[in-house]
Amino acid sequence: MDVLKVLFHVNENDKWPVALTNASNFLKDVGPGNAEVVVVANGAAVSAYADAAGGLVERMNELAAAGVLFEACRNALGMQDIAEDTLPPFVSVVSAGITEIARRQARGYAYIKP
Amino acid sequence: MDVLKVLFHVNENDKWPVALTNASNFLKDVGPGNAEVVVVANGAAVSAYADAAGGLVERMNELAAAGVLFEACRNALGMQDIAEDTLPPFVSVVSAGITEIARRQARGYAYIKP
Amino acid sequence: MDVLKVLFHVNENDKWPVALTNASNFLKDVGPGNAEVVVVANGAAVSAYADAAGGLVERMNELAAAGVLFEACRNALGMQDIAEDTLPPFVSVVSAGITEIARRQARGYAYIKP
Repeated sequence: MDVLKVLFHVNENDKWPVALTNASNFLKDVGPGNAEVVVVANGAAVSAYADAAGGLVERMNELAAAGVLFEACRNALGMQDIAEDTLPPFVSVVSAGITEIARRQARGYAYIKP
Repeated sequence: MDVLKVLFHVNENDKWPVALTNASNFLKDVGPGNAEVVVVANGAAVSAYADAAGGLVERMNELAAAGVLFEACRNALGMQDIAEDTLPPFVSVVSAGITEIARRQARGYAYIKP
Repeated sequence: MDVLKVLFHVNENDKWPVALTNASNFLKDVGPGNAEVVVVANGAAVSAYADAAGGLVERMNELAAAGVLFEACRNALGMQDIAEDTLPPFVSVVSAGITEIARRQARGYAYIKP
C-alpha cells in the first residue's frame, strides 16, 4: 500500500479529543509505517498545547512518539499571548496555519476536519 | 463535463440534514450520471444509520437509490455498541472512517465537511 | 514559490469572522500575488452577504479589493428569499455551492473549513 498522508485541522478546543482519537484509530488501522500524519492547530485551538493540566498534552505526546507531527500557527499563538518557548517540545511553530494547510494539500495530504 | 467525485464527511448528528440537502442539491445541479458521491460517517454520526425513527434513513435511502454511497466507520459503531447487522442495507461498513477519507481523497474525491 | 490556491467553505454564520481572519492572515503571510483565494458560502452563511449592518461586509469588501473572490450558492439564496440583486457587487452567484467546491478542488484548490 502507498503511504497515506493525512492532515488534521483543529481550530476549536472542543474538537481536540475527537481529532486525537481519529489520528490514533487511523494509525492502528494502517500501521504507523504506512502513514504520515500532521495535526495543524490554529485559532483558539493552539491553547491546548500550552495547557499542561488539560490532559490532552499527554495523549499528543504519545502520538508524537508514534510519528505524528503537531504544528501551531504563530498568528494564533500571538493572538493568545502564548510564548513559543512554553510549548511542549513536540510542537513545531509555523508562520501561518492556513499556508501550512494549503502547502500540505498541494503536496498530496488529505484534509480532515474533525 | 468530467465526472465530479465528492466525499461528504459527517461526524456529528446535527450535521446530517445539511449533508443530505447538500448531496441532493449537488446531484440535481450536475445530474446523477455526472457525479460520484460518497458519505462517510464516523464518530457520533454513525448512530443516525441505526435510528429508523429519526426520519433521516428515509432520505438516505432515496439518495442511495440515486447512486449515493453511505459508509460507516467500524470503530465508531463499536464505540456505540451498534451491531452491523442492524444497519440499513444501503450502508457499507469500512474498517476506519479516516482511512477511507484519506484513500478517497488520494483517488481524486473532493472533501466536503457540511 | 508557486501560487497557492485556497478555498474557504463557510456554511454557518458564526464561522465568518474566523474565515475572514484566516484569509487575511494567509494573504499577509504569502503576499497577495502568491495566492488565489475563494470563499464559497452556502447554507445559512449566505445571509451575511445581505446583512449590510452586520459589520462583515466591510471586511469582505477589503479582502475583495485585495483579490479574494466571494461566491454565494443560488440554492441557499433561494431558501432564504435573498434576491441576487441585493447582494454587494463583489459577490458572485454560483448555481450550487457544492458543485463549485468540487470543481475548484479538482482544479487544485486546497479546501479549508474554518
